[in-house]
Amino acid sequence: MKPLTVGIIGAGRIGKLHAENLMTRVKGTKLKAVTDPFLDEKWALSKGIPVTGKDHRILLEDSEIDAVLICSPSPQHAQQIIECAQVKKHIFCEKPIALDPEVIRNSLSEVEKAEVKIQVGFNRRFDPSFAKVREKVSSGALGDPQVIRVTSRDPAPPPPEYVASSGGLFLDMTIHDFDMVRFLSGSEVTEVHAYGAVLVDPDIGKAGDIDTAVISLKFANGALGIIENSRKAVYGYDQRVEVFGSKGTALADNNRPTSTIFLNNSGTMQDKPLYFFLERYQTAFASELQAFVDAVLEDKPTPVSGKDGLAPVLIALAAQESLISGKPVKVASV
Amino acid sequence: MKPLTVGIIGAGRIGKLHAENLMTRVKGTKLKAVTDPFLDEKWALSKGIPVTGKDHRILLEDSEIDAVLICSPSPQHAQQIIECAQVKKHIFCEKPIALDPEVIRNSLSEVEKAEVKIQVGFNRRFDPSFAKVREKVSSGALGDPQVIRVTSRDPAPPPPEYVASSGGLFLDMTIHDFDMVRFLSGSEVTEVHAYGAVLVDPDIGKAGDIDTAVISLKFANGALGIIENSRKAVYGYDQRVEVFGSKGTALADNNRPTSTIFLNNSGTMQDKPLYFFLERYQTAFASELQAFVDAVLEDKPTPVSGKDGLAPVLIALAAQESLISGKPVKVASV
Amino acid sequence: MKPLTVGIIGAGRIGKLHAENLMTRVKGTKLKAVTDPFLDEKWALSKGIPVTGKDHRILLEDSEIDAVLICSPSPQHAQQIIECAQVKKHIFCEKPIALDPEVIRNSLSEVEKAEVKIQVGFNRRFDPSFAKVREKVSSGALGDPQVIRVTSRDPAPPPPEYVASSGGLFLDMTIHDFDMVRFLSGSEVTEVHAYGAVLVDPDIGKAGDIDTAVISLKFANGALGIIENSRKAVYGYDQRVEVFGSKGTALADNNRPTSTIFLNNSGTMQDKPLYFFLERYQTAFASELQAFVDAVLEDKPTPVSGKDGLAPVLIALAAQESLISGKPVKVASV
Amino acid sequence: MKPLTVGIIGAGRIGKLHAENLMTRVKGTKLKAVTDPFLDEKWALSKGIPVTGKDHRILLEDSEIDAVLICSPSPQHAQQIIECAQVKKHIFCEKPIALDPEVIRNSLSEVEKAEVKIQVGFNRRFDPSFAKVREKVSSGALGDPQVIRVTSRDPAPPPPEYVASSGGLFLDMTIHDFDMVRFLSGSEVTEVHAYGAVLVDPDIGKAGDIDTAVISLKFANGALGIIENSRKAVYGYDQRVEVFGSKGTALADNNRPTSTIFLNNSGTMQDKPLYFFLERYQTAFASELQAFVDAVLEDKPTPVSGKDGLAPVLIALAAQESLISGKPVKVASV
Repeated sequence: MKPLTVGIIGAGRIGKLHAENLMTRVKGTKLKAVTDPFLDEKWALSKGIPVTGKDHRILLEDSEIDAVLICSPSPQHAQQIIECAQVKKHIFCEKPIALDPEVIRNSLSEVEKAEVKIQVGFNRRFDPSFAKVREKVSSGALGDPQVIRVTSRDPAPPPPEYVASSGGLFLDMTIHDFDMVRFLSGSEVTEVHAYGAVLVDPDIGKAGDIDTAVISLKFANGALGIIENSRKAVYGYDQRVEVFGSKGTALADNNRPTSTIFLNNSGTMQDKPLYFFLERYQTAFASELQAFVDAVLEDKPTPVSGKDGLAPVLIALAAQESLISGKPVKVASV
Repeated sequence: MKPLTVGIIGAGRIGKLHAENLMTRVKGTKLKAVTDPFLDEKWALSKGIPVTGKDHRILLEDSEIDAVLICSPSPQHAQQIIECAQVKKHIFCEKPIALDPEVIRNSLSEVEKAEVKIQVGFNRRFDPSFAKVREKVSSGALGDPQVIRVTSRDPAPPPPEYVASSGGLFLDMTIHDFDMVRFLSGSEVTEVHAYGAVLVDPDIGKAGDIDTAVISLKFANGALGIIENSRKAVYGYDQRVEVFGSKGTALADNNRPTSTIFLNNSGTMQDKPLYFFLERYQTAFASELQAFVDAVLEDKPTPVSGKDGLAPVLIALAAQESLISGKPVKVASV
Repeated sequence: MKPLTVGIIGAGRIGKLHAENLMTRVKGTKLKAVTDPFLDEKWALSKGIPVTGKDHRILLEDSEIDAVLICSPSPQHAQQIIECAQVKKHIFCEKPIALDPEVIRNSLSEVEKAEVKIQVGFNRRFDPSFAKVREKVSSGALGDPQVIRVTSRDPAPPPPEYVASSGGLFLDMTIHDFDMVRFLSGSEVTEVHAYGAVLVDPDIGKAGDIDTAVISLKFANGALGIIENSRKAVYGYDQRVEVFGSKGTALADNNRPTSTIFLNNSGTMQDKPLYFFLERYQTAFASELQAFVDAVLEDKPTPVSGKDGLAPVLIALAAQESLISGKPVKVASV
Repeated sequence: MKPLTVGIIGAGRIGKLHAENLMTRVKGTKLKAVTDPFLDEKWALSKGIPVTGKDHRILLEDSEIDAVLICSPSPQHAQQIIECAQVKKHIFCEKPIALDPEVIRNSLSEVEKAEVKIQVGFNRRFDPSFAKVREKVSSGALGDPQVIRVTSRDPAPPPPEYVASSGGLFLDMTIHDFDMVRFLSGSEVTEVHAYGAVLVDPDIGKAGDIDTAVISLKFANGALGIIENSRKAVYGYDQRVEVFGSKGTALADNNRPTSTIFLNNSGTMQDKPLYFFLERYQTAFASELQAFVDAVLEDKPTPVSGKDGLAPVLIALAAQESLISGKPVKVASV
């Protein structure tokens, strides 16, 4: 089969990661071009990327390129989706598409019109442990899902200046968890109640955001849910999920760099969890691209659709409203 | 030291358990008498209990008896506390003291007047794993507690007729978890939001109760909390807690009957958790009595005070109100 | 059913433990008498033991006593077995019966003649985790056992003066492990090769003994085996077994006092294993007595026979010979 | 720094794996050429390897190539080492160098004469979990190593025709474990005693080999050791090690594909271990090449020396002699 020729818009940390995965871990694809207004030329050269440039329009005009990975800053995502759709390129877009649902809907309607494929970068769905929990739900092994729980804590908070422009905890960090509960439950979130606090860094509070949250959820299928967030877990990246159902429960724990256990006269010791998302989701980042490439080559639906890009934003906005009003908020009301 | 002479009011399942623990596992004490309107004579005989009878007043009138364990049906607790206090007997009372805060306050004021000791039967505080989590908080090892989480699921729901008279999930089952979060955090719950559902047994819903709940909490010290409940976990009694703090996190997992692991071509297999509270809290039940006996003999405060008997009832009532109103409720408003 | 009336010869640490278990944890039995030349009178009084004395003959002459627990110093075991058998008392005897196979055989032949029951105190067979490994073998779940492994390490060496009179590591400590491999495999050890070393305490070497050993085994059913011993594991009592078979493998790990896990910026921490045999085998000590009482009351074979008391001594002697000769030794040649 | 230019002799399964790792996971290197008498041309083309051919002499004659990876069939290793050394190429050679110590010594003496570097392919030393156990030894955290244990079981036996030409279990499979105990202990094996059996497949016995082994070891530093082998573990690749020392013990367990745990009414279930060496040692294979490249570029000793290639062969030969003679054999006597 002819490999899928790919271009990447934006070569920051995540764009570079995708580029390297495309070149070494993903089958059936060829990276042709990377653009970035501030391109790291040395990196591009060392990787032997055939075409590079500052302006993403060189990708749009290259008829050999079948698909584009949008890894630019978030505020550019929606417009670039429209541009890609108009020239019939398939699209992989990092999350979030946008923070405004109208903007998301507009860009997705262009995608639909163009009949190109789109996949949103909710990489955690491709973590083998989380995927196995999902499989226990979809196979029926867990029975009816009754409680979905996500514990999601970062090892360290972002700088306050990032926080200020991030859209807030729910749109910046919890958005992954909102996607995760939809993925795990196979159902839609209908209502959300959020408690938030500033316990990690007062500067985050001064920037108008929170750094700790406990979010309760109701699902269309009757299940209940919980998300716990913190911007700072001193022991590293804490990423755990559980789905409790009528026939059992499935839990995914953190991964550790080694399986080594050391016992001495003060106790039993093991590693901390893997430090952060680059380590924890290394496999998942490669798998999501493989899934995208396969979906395009085999003309199948992508595993994370445009609708999957919109839904977590709506839940996040409902959560923000709940935090302000102090009452539960229906997602449909947003 | 002269042993503490004890009498027990009520010899149902829990009264018998306490009697046997007093006779075999608790030091510094002597069980003299047990009363129950429907006393299991055969059991009493086999245990060689010196004095038995139907009427609890024989305990009150026995000047040799220093302390009384109230293990009668819950609606009798408050009145019997008052009767014991009036004859200067120290009191260990099973939870709940009563479902009505006024009734609890009245009985506790008699205890205070009489200057006798009272301990309420929140046995889970004495579970070695939970006690160790608490110790990580109180020693400062965890730093400031930021999120307190309790997962508490029974292996099977009680019969619907029990449910009808139980006071509801929050007062019957979650009351232990409300106590646990106070114990673990060392702080008071100030506000509660409850989601509930009937997912286990429609008859529980017909009886006006719920069987599944997700409860969010705010604490006086700024921490947030979560309690998850289900009346039915097919894999057994699920009792886990976590306290996440600024310096680390401490988790207590379920206990299993053996440490044996079996691997074959279909996977890696282990036991289920211990079946129910008699198995899981076997040690805790003996330890709480030991603590009570020690507190009386050494004239120290008991580890679970009268106030500790009142507080979870107030939180449960706030949770009930939240469930009905659909809004968070301040505990102080109850 | 009439309870089994029991007397105990010898009330050192293990005799007291059995007495307390008989009185509180074992069903269908009644402790009537305890004798010890140096009886701890205060202890006996506090426990309310009906008959006490220095001379074990008061047990032999008491026609009410059905069974005797021999917990005296090892050199007296064989003679006391004979005395008990001659007055038709059933016998529970602590390990080892004797260090000389001829002496063991003589005493067992008296037992056989008298047609009384005997059980030898190999308590570890009754550890729930080890029993579950055995069950995986006997149920066929593991297929043919191919490799049997026992790791057995004490938390601290005994005093050198004890070592000198103990019969040596193999007869004093490994004897439990030789019993365990027979129990787990359901087969007889036919050949043994032993490596030993003095790595813990030079005084043990001066006393003519070793403190560290690695022992290889051949079994009648074709399986191979391994035992690892050390007199000193700084992290506590290390008691693990594994049976590897054609259909899987079963492992029993150490038990810990709590299930609590603590994570901070230096790693993941848990308790050490339970400290020593009183903690680790608490349940097993009660269960072995229950099994003995049940076997007598129901006239069934005891689960640890007289032959089971002899076999590990023969293996230990073969291991000693191997250590000296530097060659494998057939057990049948001892 | 100028990258290290590498050629590979032999592109079977392991040669291809190394080629792909060089191209995608190893830094500071460039793969220039691959030769194999039966080269998979399609694979070579798809990977874009600049120079390919049947005859390995094209590598030797290529002045641009700094280092050669010898991945040919084992009987060719020693001769190719000599050829590489004579043209001053640095050498990475798959294990074993040869089965005959004289042949190994001859080839190593050429390497020494040529003053090129050599690294032998004992990849397991680079497994993060095993490396961490080693680190606990070398840092002194474990105190004096006293017992070194390796459990090593394959998921399925090789075909009988392979067995016949493999040199036997000890030279083919246990050789990795002999290296591992040297690596972990930091000491030399001085004596070995081997028990072997045919329990997996009678055809292996007919081919003159064994499929199950228990091997005891003595080390120069006084420690004892154990290796357990089986050609068939139905639950997958079983690779565990433990070093027990005077200050603690360190264990490395198997790795599983996910961290997901599933509980239902029949128990608690997890994945099997990773299937075989390609999965388990994926990271280790890349790390050993990185270490080789770094050693050459920075002119440091390689982490697995020529001597490390010889020693395990000598131990294996001693183990074979022990199996035949039924007695322990000193390694120095081989």
